[in-house]
Parts: sequence; structure tokens; C-alpha cells
Amino acid sequence: MKTMRTKGRTRLFPTADEAEMAFYDAFERCDIAAMMTVWTESDSVVCVHPGGPRLVGFEAVRDSWVQIFAGAPQLRVRTVDVQRFDEQGVAVHSVIEEVSPRGQQAPVGQVYATNVYELTDGGWRMVIHHATPAPEATHQDEPPAPTHTLH
Amino acid sequence: MKTMRTKGRTRLFPTADEAEMAFYDAFERCDIAAMMTVWTESDSVVCVHPGGPRLVGFEAVRDSWVQIFAGAPQLRVRTVDVQRFDEQGVAVHSVIEEVSPRGQQAPVGQVYATNVYELTDGGWRMVIHHATPAPEATHQDEPPAPTHTLH
Repeated sequence: MKTMRTKGRTRLFPTADEAEMAFYDAFERCDIAAMMTVWTESDSVVCVHPGGPRLVGFEAVRDSWVQIFAGAPQLRVRTVDVQRFDEQGVAVHSVIEEVSPRGQQAPVGQVYATNVYELTDGGWRMVIHHATPAPEATHQDEPPAPTHTLH
Repeated sequence: MKTMRTKGRTRLFPTADEAEMAFYDAFERCDIAAMMTVWTESDSVVCVHPGGPRLVGFEAVRDSWVQIFAGAPQLRVRTVDVQRFDEQGVAVHSVIEEVSPRGQQAPVGQVYATNVYELTDGGWRMVIHHATPAPEATHQDEPPAPTHTLH
């Protein structure tokens, strides 16, 4: 499962939006080669899955997706309420992921994700995916309800 | 508590690092004026406190800090293992926050934060603070242990 089709590395994403589309498409299809094509091949990329540890480096990030895809989650992800901070070399998208089982329209949960892309010689690539489970049944205009006292 | 000293708005942060230092300094001192000086005054800024909802817009973010500071948490925050993606107009820092009660050296908890800054006419300002409680007793080389099945 650890081999990667090298042809994947040659694909280019001319915009951060296209990299983001490829990211969620690979996620829905559980396609590890397509997923890792989205990421910059660097020791400094960061991935935090919902409730998981902070993974640093391409290898650690790849291993985590291999493990997640091994469970073959049949999920659809729709991103809504995107807040963008895009500049010349870095693009940051804060999104709400609405996650639903495949074949079901209504989302079963929301995840807040901060996705960061950088412009490389190989086009736009993901360098950070930081995902957090949304608290149950909250609305944006409610006060925050931290689960512990660290903030 | 909703008024803000306008003089705060005139302070400049010549680098994203200085904005970040000011952010954690304001947090430790529970200083709402200093905290909001760090943020871009925009409807599109995003803040996710650990376990809390996703807040969008300067007012919502300010209200959340007012509420947090009202509890006057006596905390020290040290940031470690910073991964930086800094470009001309946007800087992204992925950090581990080691949080400890004031007067105590040993951290009582870790928070993963993705901090995003943009270069404005008023210097570098924060536009995203996305914070996630670290799972208990994990290490970076362990596989991720998501708390639910959304990823």
C-alpha cells in the first residue's frame, strides 16, 4: 500500500481551488495515489485528522491516509462557507465540510477544516490540512462552548 | 466590555512572528484590546477555539475572547515545533501550544493551532486561529486515532 504511482507526481494544479477539488475527490474515492499527488512532498507538511494527533511530514501524512482509506469510508464531502486568504505563493481556505454517507443527501456531521496550499514548481499543492469535528448542534452566532479550559 | 481602545489599532506588527508573539502575550494577560489589535478587522476572519464552533467575523471573534477572558484563565502558553509557510502576503504557522497554569512549569495540555496572518496596510494581522485539543498521550509517530468516522 506504500507504493505510489509516480505518474501522479506529474499532475499539476494550476489553482489552489483545483488542488482542493482534487483533495476532496481523492478523499471520497479513497484513492491514495491521487490524495498524495495533492500534497507537497516535504518533511514540513502538517495534517491533523479530526480528533487525531498532529502529523508532520509527507510519509506520516501518507501513512495516515493509507490507514483511513483501508477502512474504505463511503463518504461524500461538500464544502460550504469557504473563507479564502489567497496570495501569490500561499492560499488558505477555511471551510466547513458537510459529510454524509454515500447515497444519502443529508449531512451526518460537520468538520471545520483549514486547508493551506503553496505554489510549487509542480503547481499548487497542499501543505496543511487541519480538521476539527464541529460540536453538535451549534450555530455560528452562539457563543463558543470549548470542551476544556485550555483556551 | 465591547469597547476597544482605538489607540490599539495604530500598533503595527512588522512581521508575522511579532503578531504571533502579541497574540499569545494578549492571551496570557487576558487583554482584550491587545488581543483584538492582533486581528484584521474584517468580516472574514475565522476563529475556532478548542472544541468550540467556527466563528466568522471580527465581532464574533472579539465576543468569544471577551467571554474567555471573563473567566480570567491564569495560563502560560509556550509554542513549540512551529512549521512555517510564509510568503509575501500571507504567513501560516502550525504550532503546538503547551499550556500550563501560571506558576507551573510542566504543561497540562497541548493544543494544535494553525495561525494565519496577512500583510495589511497596518502591518501583519491574524486572520485565522484554528485550535484543536491534542488527544491524550499521543506521539507523532503513532497512527492517527480519530475520535469519529468523519475522516
